[in-house]
Amino acid sequence: MVFIMAKKDLISSKDRFFDSEPTTKWIAQELYDSVKDVPIVSPHGHINPHLFAEENSTFGNPSELIIIPDHYLYRMLYSQGIPMEAVGVPRIDGGETEKDPRKIWKIFADNFYLFRGTLTGIWLEYEFTNLFGIKRKLNSETAMEIYDIIDKKLNSPEYSPRKMFESFNIEVLCTTDSATDTLEYHKKIRDSGWKGKILPTFRPDAIVNLDSVGWKKNIEKLSEVSCIDVHDYKTFIKSLENRRQFFKSMGATCTDSAALISYTAELSEVEANNILSRAFKGEATDEDAKKFTAHMLMEMARMSIEDGMVMQLHCGSYRNHNPIIYKKFGPDKGCDIPIQDEFTRNLKPLLNKYGNDTRLTLILFTLDETNYAREMAPLAGHYPAVKLGPPWWFHDSINGMIRYRFNMMETAGLYNTAGFNDDARSFPSIPARHDLSRRMDASWIAGLVARKIVDMDDAQEMINDTTFRLAKKTYKL
Amino acid sequence: MVFIMAKKDLISSKDRFFDSEPTTKWIAQELYDSVKDVPIVSPHGHINPHLFAEENSTFGNPSELIIIPDHYLYRMLYSQGIPMEAVGVPRIDGGETEKDPRKIWKIFADNFYLFRGTLTGIWLEYEFTNLFGIKRKLNSETAMEIYDIIDKKLNSPEYSPRKMFESFNIEVLCTTDSATDTLEYHKKIRDSGWKGKILPTFRPDAIVNLDSVGWKKNIEKLSEVSCIDVHDYKTFIKSLENRRQFFKSMGATCTDSAALISYTAELSEVEANNILSRAFKGEATDEDAKKFTAHMLMEMARMSIEDGMVMQLHCGSYRNHNPIIYKKFGPDKGCDIPIQDEFTRNLKPLLNKYGNDTRLTLILFTLDETNYAREMAPLAGHYPAVKLGPPWWFHDSINGMIRYRFNMMETAGLYNTAGFNDDARSFPSIPARHDLSRRMDASWIAGLVARKIVDMDDAQEMINDTTFRLAKKTYKL
Amino acid sequence: MVFIMAKKDLISSKDRFFDSEPTTKWIAQELYDSVKDVPIVSPHGHINPHLFAEENSTFGNPSELIIIPDHYLYRMLYSQGIPMEAVGVPRIDGGETEKDPRKIWKIFADNFYLFRGTLTGIWLEYEFTNLFGIKRKLNSETAMEIYDIIDKKLNSPEYSPRKMFESFNIEVLCTTDSATDTLEYHKKIRDSGWKGKILPTFRPDAIVNLDSVGWKKNIEKLSEVSCIDVHDYKTFIKSLENRRQFFKSMGATCTDSAALISYTAELSEVEANNILSRAFKGEATDEDAKKFTAHMLMEMARMSIEDGMVMQLHCGSYRNHNPIIYKKFGPDKGCDIPIQDEFTRNLKPLLNKYGNDTRLTLILFTLDETNYAREMAPLAGHYPAVKLGPPWWFHDSINGMIRYRFNMMETAGLYNTAGFNDDARSFPSIPARHDLSRRMDASWIAGLVARKIVDMDDAQEMINDTTFRLAKKTYKL
Repeated sequence: MVFIMAKKDLISSKDRFFDSEPTTKWIAQELYDSVKDVPIVSPHGHINPHLFAEENSTFGNPSELIIIPDHYLYRMLYSQGIPMEAVGVPRIDGGETEKDPRKIWKIFADNFYLFRGTLTGIWLEYEFTNLFGIKRKLNSETAMEIYDIIDKKLNSPEYSPRKMFESFNIEVLCTTDSATDTLEYHKKIRDSGWKGKILPTFRPDAIVNLDSVGWKKNIEKLSEVSCIDVHDYKTFIKSLENRRQFFKSMGATCTDSAALISYTAELSEVEANNILSRAFKGEATDEDAKKFTAHMLMEMARMSIEDGMVMQLHCGSYRNHNPIIYKKFGPDKGCDIPIQDEFTRNLKPLLNKYGNDTRLTLILFTLDETNYAREMAPLAGHYPAVKLGPPWWFHDSINGMIRYRFNMMETAGLYNTAGFNDDARSFPSIPARHDLSRRMDASWIAGLVARKIVDMDDAQEMINDTTFRLAKKTYKL
Repeated sequence: MVFIMAKKDLISSKDRFFDSEPTTKWIAQELYDSVKDVPIVSPHGHINPHLFAEENSTFGNPSELIIIPDHYLYRMLYSQGIPMEAVGVPRIDGGETEKDPRKIWKIFADNFYLFRGTLTGIWLEYEFTNLFGIKRKLNSETAMEIYDIIDKKLNSPEYSPRKMFESFNIEVLCTTDSATDTLEYHKKIRDSGWKGKILPTFRPDAIVNLDSVGWKKNIEKLSEVSCIDVHDYKTFIKSLENRRQFFKSMGATCTDSAALISYTAELSEVEANNILSRAFKGEATDEDAKKFTAHMLMEMARMSIEDGMVMQLHCGSYRNHNPIIYKKFGPDKGCDIPIQDEFTRNLKPLLNKYGNDTRLTLILFTLDETNYAREMAPLAGHYPAVKLGPPWWFHDSINGMIRYRFNMMETAGLYNTAGFNDDARSFPSIPARHDLSRRMDASWIAGLVARKIVDMDDAQEMINDTTFRLAKKTYKL
Repeated sequence: MVFIMAKKDLISSKDRFFDSEPTTKWIAQELYDSVKDVPIVSPHGHINPHLFAEENSTFGNPSELIIIPDHYLYRMLYSQGIPMEAVGVPRIDGGETEKDPRKIWKIFADNFYLFRGTLTGIWLEYEFTNLFGIKRKLNSETAMEIYDIIDKKLNSPEYSPRKMFESFNIEVLCTTDSATDTLEYHKKIRDSGWKGKILPTFRPDAIVNLDSVGWKKNIEKLSEVSCIDVHDYKTFIKSLENRRQFFKSMGATCTDSAALISYTAELSEVEANNILSRAFKGEATDEDAKKFTAHMLMEMARMSIEDGMVMQLHCGSYRNHNPIIYKKFGPDKGCDIPIQDEFTRNLKPLLNKYGNDTRLTLILFTLDETNYAREMAPLAGHYPAVKLGPPWWFHDSINGMIRYRFNMMETAGLYNTAGFNDDARSFPSIPARHDLSRRMDASWIAGLVARKIVDMDDAQEMINDTTFRLAKKTYKL
């Protein structure tokens, strides 16, 4: 078994992640090879545009790059009893956390075995091997040697964000930006003359979800940036339309809405105005917030029909499930847990009103995979407006991608999908994510060929679609 | 890769759809070969008996045969923005729709790539190849050539419904007929001396679901055909029993009930009568309708125990989800979307009262696959009355059949399943559906042999069971 | 196909149950061989310690050993219309049931084909072959010959429970014992000088679930065995803590709680006391019982933090779904049916209060596999206290184990699992269950190697973890 013994050989294996059945693997290799060097189209993610605003910005040290900002990673350490403070996650109250990046790195390396077989482990290994040329497995013994290799590289000019962007061969990268964001970094990038194409995405959650933290301040900010005095429903809507126009003028082609569940319902203008009045007075109830979000999802669809921006909808995450962590460290610390959702009834009002309109593109995401075959695939296979977003968050893994194809494609068809999103928060993980997606798509399509469901001509079209055509078309890029 | 390049070779491949792992494929081939020519037993479907009433009836032109009546097909076109009018789907108001079958066919051919990897695509390709001898792939270029080949065949006497029935080697075909249907076409078939065995199935939904469209008219019809003046609960029940007897006398062995969810509950005779009174006055509430359906499911079980007819229960479809389409085109236009269901609590009243009775056969169908392992398999593995219907509607696909076996068989056992139903609305799709089912069963059982779970003797018994023995036994055919 | 024809060859196949893809199978064999002879660690199950209290106890005849106590087995027979009386299941009212073990065996053998491809079938075949050296397939023809072989062996001293325990190579076996149990058999085992390590597990359900059958008597028993007069909430809690201490002194390392769903919620001491007062008066409502169970789950977590006992939580079984069977035969007769559950919201109160405490180990089990990827894996991948129990009950089958790994491992990671439990009620099934688990783990890990996700060094660590290290560590054995 010598041939599969060494980790480095494994990671650099050409046929990594493919179905191991020989015919399928062979076909997958052929399909993958035909698209592996295609430029990356990244229509949705959470990369900070700040990184690219200055030519000489850097990623800091290896722990700052890889560990401290990545909740996928320290949530696993935390689940095994390692305090977040020990790996340098900053506290809201400024309380003590580990500052020495080498100590942080050592803890991570000591526990790297926890990531065996996990998505996070797969991405990290790809980064170590392909970005930093690491040849050894990360563990207690190799920890500091690997740290030094990465640290040295990060200090060299070829590892600046802009240089990495170029070396990653990214054709276009969409960020996610608050509706009140002035998009200064996007302007800076544009004005700098640098050729990297980075586009904003309009995210109205902090405005339309009345229970957002700091909602009133967000509205003040909205008034300020839109130059519209937001004091009632009419001005509220007008200012949102105004911001969408601004985002569009900055190159945005899509919006992104998040909600706890996919509930939609239309309010009369009077009702909407009443709820908003209560919200201005700080008197909105939970029920008010729920109804208003449901209504604003419908409004976002209406606006998309009018201004042509693609609408994304991400549902099913119970945010900040662990109040102890939330109070100490804030949001996005690995404490968001999925909940059950339902689309057939929840989306009915929106789809009945706007779903037949071919001007609307509504891309659906879920964390509840029971929605896949039961609701999402049938809806996408009927309503012209509906497209299926790729497997999201916990599910954009090897098995998650298999489950997605396995449960949806026969009913929805490939052409009602939106292609791949990396949804990355960690910039260096982008190539790892796209490579994984291309490999898994190649493996899926190869399986169809091996079972004689599609022929190679169709298969080649399909891998081109999944790799770039569907994303570009659906997101209007 | 020459050997897998050409679509025609692919479709005529002997090992199509089998698991591509070589041992499994090899065994699957052996099992499939042993049953591929066995006559078709079709215990449940929606073929119109009218087709067979006259010796010389025809299927019309290729678009009339294949496109216009098949909502599986035009729902996919519609989801991509192609209006139903453009492919000739008739409007309720008689408004304009495309009449030229060649133009309709061209649109279909131009968009046939949308069906890559879908169940609809698989069935259609089977029909093209095996029924019509088409050797080329359908696309814009080949569109009219293929149209002409099919059209020519459809005009020949061997392509009449009766001739096709015979060439399909159908042993018995069950239709689905309203409780008030006079079964005239069934009588005509019988009286014609033609040997094709076509049996009716008793479907009481339009009578027992108080919220059915035109319920009062249905009741008038019921009075008329049963010669019982239906004016209260007692006469209501009596007339239903009367109709069941009539259906039985016409050869029916089973009934079919559909409900939004599988909720069952017994009403007292007084309550049932009160609800019915309100319904007669047009005053029944939604709650009334829900309760009455729940009660009537129990009554159907009781009657089945008394008259020996097998009871089928299809739950989980939210009908006519898209009111715009419903108003324009009517029901069954690809706008039925599954919803979540639950069996453990919902079926408890019915099962507690009748589920221990070995005279009852209750065949369960679901569109919510989360019911499979969690509820249906455990229920079928305990209650003598319960049998598992095959994967239904969106799920009678390659992966749908895999999910069904994968999630249910270890708990329920094969012998608590009801064998295969094609559930076809399109007559020419019947051989495609049975072939797919036989292939997938062969592949499933072969996998058990390859993993050394069952031996070849057992495997041979099992494929005989799945292909015809279980359906014949469960449906008393 | 001669090589796969004979059942006996099949069962004794070295590569049984492995994924049949050749590379995966080859690696699985290597991994399995490395752990197949490792001693059995059995941290959770339902074996009666009585069996081991006396040196010379026996298992009775083959029907008494294999059929009469095994509801997995007679539920399948019952589902096919064979009355439980016919296979000797004793009636509560002492009514007539079959007494002749040979007649019972014959019915079982006649219907053994029903178990094709089922988990029960797999276990039984393993027992027949590996425990009793049976070489022929069980059916009508071989029935009595096989009966005689087993019967003869059961009458020999090597087939006493203690001898079998030794020959099974069990390192430690945990039983499940009511909170009021005096653990007499455990004492006897200990005092006998026999070296078999059998430990009790503390199960408080009959005390903390106010709707338990005979709850008041259980409380009287609790008062008696704890020597604390249980008359209010304070004494109630004190007596439970007392019993936990007693179990700990008898070697117990863990507790086991069962609830219909995983709902947790904290009551004030006053509320808890009020509910308990009502319960003492026989006036507790369903809502009271629900709240009290929810509260006591939190109390069990608190006590676990204080006394270090590992907490298990089994949710999702609707017990005694069939009242006819329950009245005639009592509980645990194959009539427990799973229901839907939800963990994100239900467990939030408990996890928010105790889930960050590294002193707590909370092992979660579910019968609702939709909880796997959606809720359980994300929770286990975050909260330090949460560990994932193995697939439970209906799901500890070949496919059930595949579903478990497939849906959870990428998010939760292997190191947030609790290793394997056999959960056996039938003592001779223990080796079959562990062998199946080792084979399926080997196959899973081999698949990761074949797809180049982990290397062989990691794979070897992982199979050691799944086979014994995780269970020993998580259960503190």
